[in-house]
This record gives sequence, structure tokens and C-alpha cells, in this order.
Amino acid sequence: MKRTAMIGHLNDTHAGQTVTLQGWVSRRRDLGGLIFAELRDRSGTVQVQVEPDSPAFADADRLRAEYVAEVEGHFQLRPEGQRKGGLGDYEVLATRVRVLNPAKTPPFELDKGDQVSEDIRLKYRYLDLRRPEMQRGLLLRSRAVAAVTAFLDAQGFVQVETPMLTKSTPEGARDFLVPSRQNPGEFYALPQSPQLFKQMLMIAGFDRYYQLARCFRDEDLRADRQPDFTQLDMEMSFVEQDDVLALQEQLLAHVVRETVGAELPLPFPRLSYHDAMNRFGSDKPDQRFGLEFVEVTDLFRGGEFKAFAEAETVKVVAAPELTRKQIDELERVAKQNGARGLAWLKRDGEGFSGGISKFVGAQAAALIERTGVEQGGTLLFAAGEWKKAVSALGAVRLALRDLFDLAAHGPRFHVSWVTDFPQLEFDEDSGTWTYMHHPFTAPHPDDLPLFGTARQGEIRAQAYDLVLNGFEIGGGSVRIHDPAVQAQMFAAIGLSPEQAREKFGFFLDALEYGTPPHGGIAWGFDRLVMVLSGAASIREVIAFPKNNRGVDLLALAPSPVESAQLAEVGLQVAEV
Amino acid sequence: MKRTAMIGHLNDTHAGQTVTLQGWVSRRRDLGGLIFAELRDRSGTVQVQVEPDSPAFADADRLRAEYVAEVEGHFQLRPEGQRKGGLGDYEVLATRVRVLNPAKTPPFELDKGDQVSEDIRLKYRYLDLRRPEMQRGLLLRSRAVAAVTAFLDAQGFVQVETPMLTKSTPEGARDFLVPSRQNPGEFYALPQSPQLFKQMLMIAGFDRYYQLARCFRDEDLRADRQPDFTQLDMEMSFVEQDDVLALQEQLLAHVVRETVGAELPLPFPRLSYHDAMNRFGSDKPDQRFGLEFVEVTDLFRGGEFKAFAEAETVKVVAAPELTRKQIDELERVAKQNGARGLAWLKRDGEGFSGGISKFVGAQAAALIERTGVEQGGTLLFAAGEWKKAVSALGAVRLALRDLFDLAAHGPRFHVSWVTDFPQLEFDEDSGTWTYMHHPFTAPHPDDLPLFGTARQGEIRAQAYDLVLNGFEIGGGSVRIHDPAVQAQMFAAIGLSPEQAREKFGFFLDALEYGTPPHGGIAWGFDRLVMVLSGAASIREVIAFPKNNRGVDLLALAPSPVESAQLAEVGLQVAEV
Repeated sequence: MKRTAMIGHLNDTHAGQTVTLQGWVSRRRDLGGLIFAELRDRSGTVQVQVEPDSPAFADADRLRAEYVAEVEGHFQLRPEGQRKGGLGDYEVLATRVRVLNPAKTPPFELDKGDQVSEDIRLKYRYLDLRRPEMQRGLLLRSRAVAAVTAFLDAQGFVQVETPMLTKSTPEGARDFLVPSRQNPGEFYALPQSPQLFKQMLMIAGFDRYYQLARCFRDEDLRADRQPDFTQLDMEMSFVEQDDVLALQEQLLAHVVRETVGAELPLPFPRLSYHDAMNRFGSDKPDQRFGLEFVEVTDLFRGGEFKAFAEAETVKVVAAPELTRKQIDELERVAKQNGARGLAWLKRDGEGFSGGISKFVGAQAAALIERTGVEQGGTLLFAAGEWKKAVSALGAVRLALRDLFDLAAHGPRFHVSWVTDFPQLEFDEDSGTWTYMHHPFTAPHPDDLPLFGTARQGEIRAQAYDLVLNGFEIGGGSVRIHDPAVQAQMFAAIGLSPEQAREKFGFFLDALEYGTPPHGGIAWGFDRLVMVLSGAASIREVIAFPKNNRGVDLLALAPSPVESAQLAEVGLQVAEV
Repeated sequence: MKRTAMIGHLNDTHAGQTVTLQGWVSRRRDLGGLIFAELRDRSGTVQVQVEPDSPAFADADRLRAEYVAEVEGHFQLRPEGQRKGGLGDYEVLATRVRVLNPAKTPPFELDKGDQVSEDIRLKYRYLDLRRPEMQRGLLLRSRAVAAVTAFLDAQGFVQVETPMLTKSTPEGARDFLVPSRQNPGEFYALPQSPQLFKQMLMIAGFDRYYQLARCFRDEDLRADRQPDFTQLDMEMSFVEQDDVLALQEQLLAHVVRETVGAELPLPFPRLSYHDAMNRFGSDKPDQRFGLEFVEVTDLFRGGEFKAFAEAETVKVVAAPELTRKQIDELERVAKQNGARGLAWLKRDGEGFSGGISKFVGAQAAALIERTGVEQGGTLLFAAGEWKKAVSALGAVRLALRDLFDLAAHGPRFHVSWVTDFPQLEFDEDSGTWTYMHHPFTAPHPDDLPLFGTARQGEIRAQAYDLVLNGFEIGGGSVRIHDPAVQAQMFAAIGLSPEQAREKFGFFLDALEYGTPPHGGIAWGFDRLVMVLSGAASIREVIAFPKNNRGVDLLALAPSPVESAQLAEVGLQVAEV
């Protein structure tokens, strides 16, 4: 059962030769007594032509869409004028056709798969995955795995598998539980991440670790979430933040080069969390386009427009000319993101009209100068408490990107680091401090004295996010390796030593037996592949995803089980 | 925080230079006013010497076992007569020592770790993993992953991740269940293998697939089992058995070369299941040594020794000289493996003494000639129903291997294929036929007419096991791609079309939409690494294994959960 080559690998050197090919019939047409079939495999499609007097004709006549067939024939140039470039320059004149397996009529036409409801595509995923665009995404993903493995192996990273049946980890999402039969009434948790295990590998002296780790979080699903997902997880010993970042930049550049052939300029630009929020209204700013915020708080301070005069922050973004309807839509976005409204101005000569123009007199010249707004262009404002104002305007900025397809004019990929995240956040609802990244993130050493003071919200974490085209594709930190600092951190988030011990006792023990300075990062691998392949959802780059109700529509999971199976693990379905 | 190099990478070119090293203190001794410390990292250990007048002395004096330290000093040849080869030829004369982190006194001495109870080692796994022999095993494992990835990527295999939260698969072991919160009262199963998903990837046209897949089986644990384990899972389309085997041979040879530097002779020898059982009494024969069975049924047929005269099979193995106590021990092994006893003879001149010698007269010359038993050597017999007899004698053969360390004199690695397994086995207990491999294994085409006849036990499967040093390290098959054959197979094992549809409906649907001929294999990756590294248990090559009660003694999993957490998934602990 030997094919000459995969279809996409046929080339000039095969011209004039007899080839044997295997694949699926994409299409079959009859024209002038001849049969034309397109034969497809993972690598490409080629036209097969069967003449009426060919010994292959009777078998070829059985071919229908999605039949599996073996074709032997003469690989030749198509007549001039019919050549379509690449494989389309060639055809196979069949001398033998063998149906390897027939196929029922597919429930949808594969080449119209993108118009089919996702539920149908997921139910017949084995057909959906035959579509070339789906195969391209998964092939890219596979190349990314190979590129990561080769690079990290060469850099002395050790691939280690961490437990899948484990104990709750500190990410703070809901765990998936696995009942234990050998210990009835007890449960394993599926890992939310290998965080503590990778830190223990550093304590164990492995020095550099990586793993493509399957992780599990039982959250309500959104478009870009799955209950189980894949993290490229890494950790390094005897490093500072700059060491981690430098190596990550080389790794990402390598992966992008090997998968899509693009070059990322090194080093990646870095933005502090404050700058990212202040300039773009996002901790994962999409910098493929401009529309940076302009600071105008001072222009309105103490003026007659009260909403601006007393605001902590007034920011403005200079948009192109907008219709009233577009402005209304953008105001809706601003409100959904915490603003009370969206003040605007339209440039009109050396002044403004519309919106809040009656409040803008003296400021007009300064506004024009600072923003560079063009004639007819629109200024969009956010005012209020800093974080709320910039966040709302950040959402408006992304809506403008989508409205005018601004990213299309920028670079294909824009990568940056966001650094200097706050170590602690105050949660208004519960009135307590909590960690921003996770409780093992190291604070900046200069900020240690702020722990326990009124200014502990100013402590900077040695944490960093990797941002690609507006997606957070990685996040990590230098970790705490000093048990005394770890204790300070637990105290800051209101965990007593006893509570900390109850939750993380085994890890706190480990920390005392000779922990090297260490730090690491995890990439959201599904999301990275989604961005590199240009897919609209991570479901497009996962072979067999769940829908947004957590259901596998193909295998029909989850499903009820027999009560005897439950009894074995000491459980019963709860009475309502 | 830059080191000159990892310790094990220091060499001649560093001699006479100032180096900066980081690692753990293995040992600290004081001698003649000097401090001697051994500094260790993943790659090696070097001696550090601190003189009393060194500026480093005060800091060095703080060093204790397992402290993390940074050492700067002069890398130099040790005095002649003190050189121990390799890194042992050198020492570092410290000029600066920095304690990066202190360590509590470890609960056991690391260099005596192999004498410590496994429970203690698992509880303090982060210390156990510092032992060089543990690190060697996991580093070898990591190199094996990189070698597999590079090889399969180059061969056009696509790495695809299959679902972790899925539905019961057909391996027939007990599933681990995961309750669903979004669908209360329903459950996912953790995959026992990606079997059906990888076959669907072939149906989807991926052509060549691989994955290092985490798999889960809720079985009572033995020395070489874990509840979750790792399978190197592969599948190929448009192949026959020989294509799969040829590629696997190249892959294993590559992995062995890259990990332990050994060469495996290609092609691997093949044995049918019948020959393996008949010659070695095992379907995974250890062929690093001889002790092949000799067929002597005919010599005793119809003779005066009734136990042999009427036996279906009489086999003998020629062992070295054995004491009476050793024979008793081997008889115990034979009985544990289903024999009623262990008949024996000791060669004495041109005849035999002891054991059943009074029944052996006329046969003596033929026994000596066929077995080549040496003077004083022992013949060990098994007689009875063929499979029972050879299985029992197979166990005795392995006991002889262990008793005389026979494998030590053979090749380091012996690989072979075992092929032509029976498609179906009759289960005496339930009085039904069952599959030997799994119900999707293709039967040999010549044997198809036997389905549904009295001779269906003779149907050969297109299944194959990969055997290394007596361990089954891989198993696979050509799969059924014809729905009609699949229906025959289900009928043969007593599944009605309705029952088959209920269990595997989604897969049977898939099979009808254009399935290519395909086949594959899965390697027991933990076991392969165990054999390559010479470890005694798979737990030695898994970073954080469970003990044989399924407990993670480090993280203390499984554990009870709050009843609110159970209520969220619609469960409660069963009332007894």
C-alpha cells in the first residue's frame, strides 16, 4: 500500500511519471463522457481525469464525495490555458482507480463548512476537520510543539510531567473533582496549573523545566475558554526577571519563525502596567495601531464643565470622522465598560461642534494641538476615577479598531511585555486585599518595606505578561524563595499562618529545604496558536473542543453513569 | 545572577580562570582550618576549598548540607595524587561565597536515599529528586521526549491533543469519573487511551498522528502501574502492518541512540504469539538469555509416567545445577502460575537421578540429546494443557534468570515483535467470547470466514506487541476500517447492533463517512524509560508518583472536600 508521495508533495520531478495517490474525493464531475475527480489529502488536492476507454472508468464511476480512493495514473501538465498554478498546473490521467472505502453523503458540504452552525460542525467533527483551513490550524499547532521542544531541549530545559490527579492549586478558580475509589469519600482535583509542582522541581534542582501541560478550570465558558486547555509551562532557577524575559523572547521568535515564517524584532518593547493602562486602557494593549490616549485632565481642571473639572483623570482619543450612529454605538461600549457616558467633539475648523462643544472654548486650540485631530475627526473622552476612565476608553479604542479595521494596516504581529503589575489589589466588595497574580509571586525588593502599611497597594510585583496582538498569551513572575517574604505575603492577603499551612503546608515545607531563586512563565498555548493561525476562536485550533455548555457534542460527554459506578466511589446523586 | 557554566560543564578550558557557580552544598567538612564544601547542581559536583584567610571564609562558615550557595573562585587542578578523574581533577579556590538560601536539616541523608523507605522519599519528593540517580532517570525521559518529537515531526506526524474530559473508552478497565457542574448528575470520564479519537483523526484525514497522552485507569495498583500514566500514542493511514512496524523500528532505534547511545540491530526479530508462548512461555519473552523450551511430548506419549503420557504438551527447560532448595522454590513459582507441580531430573552421567528419574529410562538419551543438558544440570518439566503448561514453565524460566542473573550476560537490550495474536479469546468464567486487544483490531483477512464458526478462536488479529527485555513496551494493531467487518466483530463478542450503537454510536457513525485503512500503536512511555534507565519501578521515572494505594504522599491527595463543593455538582457522600 505505497503511495508515490502525499499529493501536496508532487512537483515538477513527477511530471510525465506514473504516480500512485491515496485520499478523499472532494468533488466528482462528468463532462463530455469523462470523469473528473478531485483527490485530496492533508497536503493538497489534485485533479484526476478518467477517460471513457480507461480501464479505470468502471471503478471511477463509483466515486462520490468523500469516498476514500487509490488512484494510479500519469501525472502530467494540464493543457495550456487551464493551468492554475502550483498543483493546479497538473492533472492525473488515471489508469487504475480503487475504492478503498465508500462514504455516506456528508451532512454538510465541506467547502461550505464555515457557513454551517458550530453545533453541527462539532457533532461531525471528523468531517469538519477535513476542511483545509481546520487542518492548517492543527498542523501549525503541531509545528509549534516541535519548535518549542527543540528550542527548549537545546537550552537545557527538562521536560517533566506533573500529576493530573492532585490537590487543589492556588489559581483560585473552581476545581474539577475526581472521586477516589480506593479512598471513598475523598477526591483528587484536576490541576488548574502545575504551579506548585514546577516550583518544587526547582527546589529539587532541575534548574530549567518545561511542559505542555493540560490544565482544568471549572468556570462558566466564554468564547475563548475551554474547561481543559493547554499551557506551555516553564520555570528557571538562578534567574532574575530579565533572564526569563530574554529567553522567552528568543523562544517566541523561534516559534513564530518556524510556524508562520515571520520575524519578530528583538528585544520586545516593555510597558509598565501603569503605562499600558494609561496610554491604551488595557493591561494587554493591542499596539498594531495607534489611537493612544491623550492626557487632558489639566485643560479642564476647575473649569465650567463640572464632569471634567473635578475628575481625577480626563483622557481623550482622536478618532476618524464618526456618524452619530457610530458615536451612539461607541457610547454603549463605554457604558458596558463602566463609564457613565461618552463625551465627544467633532473638529470644525479651528474649533469644535457637537457633543460637549458648548463647554469647550478656551481649550479648543490646546485640544487640537495635543491630539492632532483632523478636520471632521472626532474626539472621544473618558473622565472619572483613573482606572475606570482608562478602562472604558480602552474598550472604545478596541471598538474603533474593529469599526475601521485599524489592525489590518499595522504589522502582522505586535508583541510586548507588560511589567510592574501591582502585587496586591484591594477588593472593594469583600474589603480585603488579594493577590493580583498568585500568592507566590515575588514583590520588587525595593517595595518590601510597604508590606503591612497603608501603601501596600503600591508594591510592584516582579510579574510580567506577554502580549501579542492584544491577547495575553503568557504570564509569569519571579517567585518568592524566602520563607519570610512568603509569610509577609500571606499576612498581607489576610491568611493566618495556620490557614496558609492548611492550604499550602507541603509547599511551605519544601520552601525551607534549600530553595534557589527562581521564576517562570506559562503560555496560553491554545490562544497563541489561535493568534498565529488567524483563527477567530480557540475552538478552531483544538481538535475536539467542548461547546460553551461544556458538552462534547461528538462523544456526547458528560453523560449519566450507573448508580453502581457511583456507589464504588462512595457517592450518590444528591436528593433535591 | 550569571553563572559561568553549570558545574558539570566545567572543563579544561576553564582551568586557571575565575568562575561563578551556583548550586546546593552536598557536604561540608573542616580540615586543617580549611573549609571543604561540595557544590552540586543537576549536571555535576565540584569541590570548593576555602582558606582561613579568604574573604569568603565567614560566609562559607555558614554553609550546611543542602544550603543554596553562589561561589566565586579560582578553578584549578587539584594537587597531583588527589585527582579523581573528570571534575574530580579540579577544585574551586573560593574568593566569595554567598548563601542564597539556607536549608533545614533534611529528614534523610540524600546519598543514602536508596536505603530510605519509599513513603519518606515520596513525602519529601523534592529532596529525593535531588539525588543524582533520580535526576538521571528524569533527564533521560526528557531526552526521550525530544527525540520522539523530532523524529515523528520529521516523518510528517502531526501532534494532536485529544480530550481529557471525555466519555468512557473501550479498554475495559474502570474509568475515573469527573462530575459536571454545568450538567449536574452527569459525568465526564478521564480517557483510558485516545483510541477512538486517534482513529477519528485518521477518518478526518490527518494521515499520521502522535501524542504523548496522559491516560487514566482506576485499577488496583501493582509495582509497575499508576492511576495516571503516559502513552506515546501513534496512528497512520494508508498502511499495512509492515509499514507500521518498519517505522516503529526506526523510531525506537533513534530514541535508544539519543538517550543511552546504544545501537539496536534492525530489523527487529518477529515471533508469532504461538511461537513466543511455545518457546518461552510468555507473550513478552525476555530474549536476553536462552533457556528455550524443548518439546518432548512425543518422548513420553503413551508411556508409563501417566502425568506426561496423556498430557497435551510436555516441555522441558535445561537449567544449571540446582540445589534441592532452589528446586523447591522454583516449584512454588510453577504452582503460583497454574502448574500442579514441577517435575525435574538431574543429569548423572548418561542418565538422570532424582525427581522423576525412575520414570525415565528409554527417554534418557533423547532428553540429553535434545536439551544438551550439562553434567549435573537440571531438567525442569511442565506438562498438561498447552497454554497452562508453557505459561507455568515461562514463569520458572524468569525465576531462573533472576536466580543466576542470566540477563547480565546477554545484550544490554533485546527487542522483538510478537505478532499474530488471537483475535478472540474464550472466557471460561462467563462462557463468552471476548476481544484480546480491543474490538477495533482488524482480523487477518484470510481468517474472516472463521467468524461465527466453531473455529473463531483461530482467527489471527493484525495486532503486534513491542517487547524490550521481557517488558511489553508497546502494543498496537491494524484497525477495522470496513463497517461490515466491525459488525462481524461486535457480533462475535456478543454485542447486538443496538448495544454496539449505544456504546460506540458516534464512532460507528464516523466509520461510515470515508475511513481510510489505518493502524497504529501505543508505547507505555513510563515503562520504556524505566527499562532504558535501568530503574526498578516506573515510580523511579515519574517525578511525583502515587503510592500503591493511589495516594500522593507529598500533596496529600486525595482528600475530603466541603459538602458545598459536592452540592455544586449535584452529589453527596453516600449514606452507608
